[in-house]
Amino acid sequence: MQWAKVLGLGVGAAALLGLGIILGHFAIPKKADPSTSAPQDLDLEVLETVLGQLDAGRIRENLRELSREPHLASSPRDAALVQLLLQRWRDSVSGLDSAEAIENEVLLSFPSQEQPNHVDVVSPSGTILYSCLQNEENLTGEQGGPDVVPPYAAYAPPGTPQGPLVYANRGTEEDFEELQTQGIKLEGTIALTRYGGAGRGAKAVNAAKHGVAGVLVYTDPADINDGLSSPGETFPNSWYLPPSGVERGSYYEYFGDPLTPYLPARPSSFRLDLANVSGFPPIPTQPIGFRDAKVLLCNLNGNVALSAWQGALGCDYRLGPGFRPNGQFPADSQVNVSVHNRLELKNSSNVLGVIRGAVEPDRYVLYGNHRDSWVHGAVDPSSGTAVLLELSRVLGTLLKKGTWRPRRSIVFASWGAEEFGLIGSTEFTEEFFSKLQARTVAYINVDISVFANATLRVQGTPPVQSVVFSAAKEIRSPGSGDISIYNNWIKYFNRSSPVYGLVPSLGSLGAGSDYAPFIHFLGISSMDIAYTYDRSKTSARIYPTYHTAFDTFDYVDKFVDPGFGSHQAVAQTAGSVLLRLSDSFFLPLNVSDYSETLRSFLQAAQQDLGDLLEQHSISLGPLAMAVEKFETAATALDQHISTLQKGSHDPLKVRMLNDQLMLLERTFLNPRAFPEERYYSHVLWAPRMGSVATFPGLANACSRANDVGAGSEAWAEVQRQLSIVVAALEGAAATLMPVPDL
Amino acid sequence: MQWAKVLGLGVGAAALLGLGIILGHFAIPKKADPSTSAPQDLDLEVLETVLGQLDAGRIRENLRELSREPHLASSPRDAALVQLLLQRWRDSVSGLDSAEAIENEVLLSFPSQEQPNHVDVVSPSGTILYSCLQNEENLTGEQGGPDVVPPYAAYAPPGTPQGPLVYANRGTEEDFEELQTQGIKLEGTIALTRYGGAGRGAKAVNAAKHGVAGVLVYTDPADINDGLSSPGETFPNSWYLPPSGVERGSYYEYFGDPLTPYLPARPSSFRLDLANVSGFPPIPTQPIGFRDAKVLLCNLNGNVALSAWQGALGCDYRLGPGFRPNGQFPADSQVNVSVHNRLELKNSSNVLGVIRGAVEPDRYVLYGNHRDSWVHGAVDPSSGTAVLLELSRVLGTLLKKGTWRPRRSIVFASWGAEEFGLIGSTEFTEEFFSKLQARTVAYINVDISVFANATLRVQGTPPVQSVVFSAAKEIRSPGSGDISIYNNWIKYFNRSSPVYGLVPSLGSLGAGSDYAPFIHFLGISSMDIAYTYDRSKTSARIYPTYHTAFDTFDYVDKFVDPGFGSHQAVAQTAGSVLLRLSDSFFLPLNVSDYSETLRSFLQAAQQDLGDLLEQHSISLGPLAMAVEKFETAATALDQHISTLQKGSHDPLKVRMLNDQLMLLERTFLNPRAFPEERYYSHVLWAPRMGSVATFPGLANACSRANDVGAGSEAWAEVQRQLSIVVAALEGAAATLMPVPDL
Repeated sequence: MQWAKVLGLGVGAAALLGLGIILGHFAIPKKADPSTSAPQDLDLEVLETVLGQLDAGRIRENLRELSREPHLASSPRDAALVQLLLQRWRDSVSGLDSAEAIENEVLLSFPSQEQPNHVDVVSPSGTILYSCLQNEENLTGEQGGPDVVPPYAAYAPPGTPQGPLVYANRGTEEDFEELQTQGIKLEGTIALTRYGGAGRGAKAVNAAKHGVAGVLVYTDPADINDGLSSPGETFPNSWYLPPSGVERGSYYEYFGDPLTPYLPARPSSFRLDLANVSGFPPIPTQPIGFRDAKVLLCNLNGNVALSAWQGALGCDYRLGPGFRPNGQFPADSQVNVSVHNRLELKNSSNVLGVIRGAVEPDRYVLYGNHRDSWVHGAVDPSSGTAVLLELSRVLGTLLKKGTWRPRRSIVFASWGAEEFGLIGSTEFTEEFFSKLQARTVAYINVDISVFANATLRVQGTPPVQSVVFSAAKEIRSPGSGDISIYNNWIKYFNRSSPVYGLVPSLGSLGAGSDYAPFIHFLGISSMDIAYTYDRSKTSARIYPTYHTAFDTFDYVDKFVDPGFGSHQAVAQTAGSVLLRLSDSFFLPLNVSDYSETLRSFLQAAQQDLGDLLEQHSISLGPLAMAVEKFETAATALDQHISTLQKGSHDPLKVRMLNDQLMLLERTFLNPRAFPEERYYSHVLWAPRMGSVATFPGLANACSRANDVGAGSEAWAEVQRQLSIVVAALEGAAATLMPVPDL
Repeated sequence: MQWAKVLGLGVGAAALLGLGIILGHFAIPKKADPSTSAPQDLDLEVLETVLGQLDAGRIRENLRELSREPHLASSPRDAALVQLLLQRWRDSVSGLDSAEAIENEVLLSFPSQEQPNHVDVVSPSGTILYSCLQNEENLTGEQGGPDVVPPYAAYAPPGTPQGPLVYANRGTEEDFEELQTQGIKLEGTIALTRYGGAGRGAKAVNAAKHGVAGVLVYTDPADINDGLSSPGETFPNSWYLPPSGVERGSYYEYFGDPLTPYLPARPSSFRLDLANVSGFPPIPTQPIGFRDAKVLLCNLNGNVALSAWQGALGCDYRLGPGFRPNGQFPADSQVNVSVHNRLELKNSSNVLGVIRGAVEPDRYVLYGNHRDSWVHGAVDPSSGTAVLLELSRVLGTLLKKGTWRPRRSIVFASWGAEEFGLIGSTEFTEEFFSKLQARTVAYINVDISVFANATLRVQGTPPVQSVVFSAAKEIRSPGSGDISIYNNWIKYFNRSSPVYGLVPSLGSLGAGSDYAPFIHFLGISSMDIAYTYDRSKTSARIYPTYHTAFDTFDYVDKFVDPGFGSHQAVAQTAGSVLLRLSDSFFLPLNVSDYSETLRSFLQAAQQDLGDLLEQHSISLGPLAMAVEKFETAATALDQHISTLQKGSHDPLKVRMLNDQLMLLERTFLNPRAFPEERYYSHVLWAPRMGSVATFPGLANACSRANDVGAGSEAWAEVQRQLSIVVAALEGAAATLMPVPDL
């Protein structure tokens, strides 16, 4: 062999070996290398598949089954639906990883079956001259039967007060003061009020302060039916409320099981003695339909009420007391309200279904709705549950096929006994407080999924705005040509954002559904998603058959959402939000959107309270500085996110960032801020008096301090509330700052 | 070329290429591959280096500098020490990554310089017959001078009560009841009490309930000096307290700045009106030395006190009231207590020094001690600060050299105004509540590092036991031959563990130092580390010169720890614990050690309270079930940890586990459990009446309910407390369960 050859072979061999080394090192990826290989992230193909598979027809079928029978909390049908959910979520083809029912023992309130509640006009001699309907008219064959609970005011105490009738408009404090100003003696009267204006229970609370003995509540056609009231114009001939329709509801002032505040309602839990329970209406209360309300109201004596108090019953509303001469009843007739409600300890279950996260199983995205209804509850809540079941079916199918598993865990929830006061969800948050607070990324609530067909409507805290927008931009709006849900939405609800320009306007979260304990008690970023009205076409307070026996499948199928396109749109929107939250490597919570809220709250405080505070030598300076500190920290964090997104995608680094995003909402909690407001700990979203959108603790304290006769203690409370919100904002800013900094 | 050759070359080439590929793939590690390469973990060589460099001589020099002058909170010397700390922690050779001072504006209490407090015996005509010393005797040249604050009871109100003297032993409730039983009229008297038995402030609270007008407190030689009292037997001739020595102290009942409960004490913060502050002693109170106490006590009239009330002053202790005939004073002489303390808003700083974590910067290990002293404070707190500075120097040096950076962030803290009621640390936890709660792995407190030379003494919650044991096993005990600190410790404090057999016994955490807000308010696993007494050699309540002007450098150098070997041992132990917590890949918090505590609390409840509860139809069954649930979850978690430790070392998986370990302690917090116990939210470690170690809420509620005359409300509270602890244990168990489970 020649040297050259040997050398050639040697060089060739070295080159081959070298090539092999290079190939081996660079061309063959090592397994499970989370820092250099792409981390598990939102898969847009999977997202498209999910959205494509969400089927309007199946949602319709779900709704038919869910609303087939009345399913009042703790009823046999409610229990049957628990089984239905378990069966669906345990299905081998389309089920989840696991599902279980957790039973609580909670205090509910029901009308007596033996002694029905009744409302009558009674002559001085005791003769019954007129009786209000005890049940709604059976217009579609679904309003009869033993499972239809008669109209009642849950948690109103039993009693049979009788007295002259007065009309008290919406039963607010101002309304009763107006009656007093008019010289009407309220002691011992029965007050007829209409829904709206004040919370259900508040009407009785306000009434009782003036010595009123009993309260009636009805829904005025002006408030619910755009003025229409005849049988021909109402259901089943239109979506409007029939004259006999009655809104049921909980009249309990707080939420959660009334006997176990702050404790889970397990069988062995401590329960308050009934004598120590607060928040129930103080006097007997009963809701009636507008057919009966008309008879009572149009026969009233006394002055004609203010024009703002008038409704659409076709007569002048007078104030009373008592009936007018020459009316349907002798002038000295009275109204008797007989309430025989009973409190009962009942079992109510939450059903939980879990999809285990592949990468971060200890981060939860929660998606829930209540299961219980007042009667058939086709709209409320089954329109939401029908969507929930379809979404879990589509995700479950992908899961069981092995084609997808989310990055984070997904928890689906079907809450019990929401109608009685968000009981199931509240007990759940009490039982798993620490774990949920440490691990939950966000809570998505879809209760009534479709009020009407016009537009998306979302309530939520600022961090969820961006993910909702992202979802809404990529889904076609139902039935309005080729326009996105986002572009449709912006036509109905919008605002001018200093940062983004014209954008759809997110509503803020009150306590109207099961998101309440998540946002107010746990400080978890939450949202509520639905399709809703074109407000130029209806002024109804809510969809007209709300909480009545007319809220049935046919009502939805014919009037609310024929074709179920809006249901599908909500399923797609909520599904997209869910997947983005569960699967995105970088959590899509834009915490810097809180800056806009804080700045606007601050400006409102400066404008609305600044002068008053200055008169009492209280400066908003520290608050302004805290807002600025938050803004600076949020801007710097956004910069950090951009850098990270361009960088190495180290899963631990992104986890640390995501923890900052997830926990930001928690920093606004202070359980010592308003101890008298049960469960409300979020210093930005607690209940607020007045119409100015600003810091609630500060606004409420100012309002109380500004009362005639309030002393220095009340002004000290203003200062305390100011310090509480400053400390919360500084704590929030500290959480957004680079993690090793103090 | 022949075919065989070509083939041979081809085969050879393929083999070479293949070999290359194999080498390239397996033999050359890819950079930054956290899942397959070893993650950053505790480096035993670094640990050994650190322990080896902790130098007794340097600790001694630190102590000399720190205790050179009195440094009462907010004094100029206190401010100078803030600068010293900043300078050390910003040093370019041995400093940390960053250091800053955070100033608070807090309410402190000082004696008047113009009107010194004084205690006198006064004849009926008003002549002063005897005056107690206003200052300690200047025995070493260090007890004089304007910077030595005269003995006083901080926060005791000003006033000049005068009345007949009584002796009230330790001033407990039982002590005053005993005096009443003996028929002694307490109204308007001055009560002489000795330290111990009840908290400082409690003596005045108890006294005031019986109409006592003023309180004197002294330290009995029986309690502090093993009976010795003559000048020749005491400092500077021995470590015992000289006759003129007086223990200063805070008499405030709560902790934190008195004007800003639950809010940081920033200049703009809301402050309570003084009229609304609670927790100050209700009546003038003044501490005196036993030289003066002897003159008062040995001249008392009345019955001889119980033997348990006798001390070592060399006379029979009588109860009074008033002086005996034929004694040093006319029998009708009285004692006048003139207190002129003033409350002042003062600036007090915390100093924070940070070492940024390399891998998990958002996980903090906190290590702190207070800086302020009553006088020179050589033992309290400078013995701890001297160790803190040495530890931060050694770690800072490695850091600046670039040879080490911890996995997690380390935060060193020098707290202000601890002596007045843990003020600096409490304000810090209020200001950074959310962030600290979300991110802090553990808090290490080293206040007084050396009480005496005999043995290690650690107080802490169960999860820290294992890491303290690990550290203590690998460090040599000072001055006792070749035995580990652990093996020495077990000789002095031990217990029989059902799980481990004979082990050193960890004490539980009260509120004696700055760990209190971390464990009780934030729920952060905490510990306090020191060297302490051989109890067979002394029965002193605490080291004799505690809170006096005799607690000086020479006192430490000559009597407490000549050679500073115990200081070095504490530095090594605390340093090892710190490094293990900051650097270990798997957090060394053994949460399953809580099982033993819970089981023993349960057994104590069953034994001590079971019968009583049964009489009131209250079952401990749910509590027993909750304890079992916790044990099961903890055992399963231990199994999971073993599996993970053998497995792939995925940093995200270990982070998820570590979060469970870190947050377990948080699950025991319930801010609504004992709202009247300010800051105490930990349902296992809140203050407890009685001597039985069990669940404090339950024990206290039982104790109150069992009082004669307690009604059904008190028994309802027992049931509420039982449900609170059951819910906490179930929440804790849920946190330990596999992370996607509910």
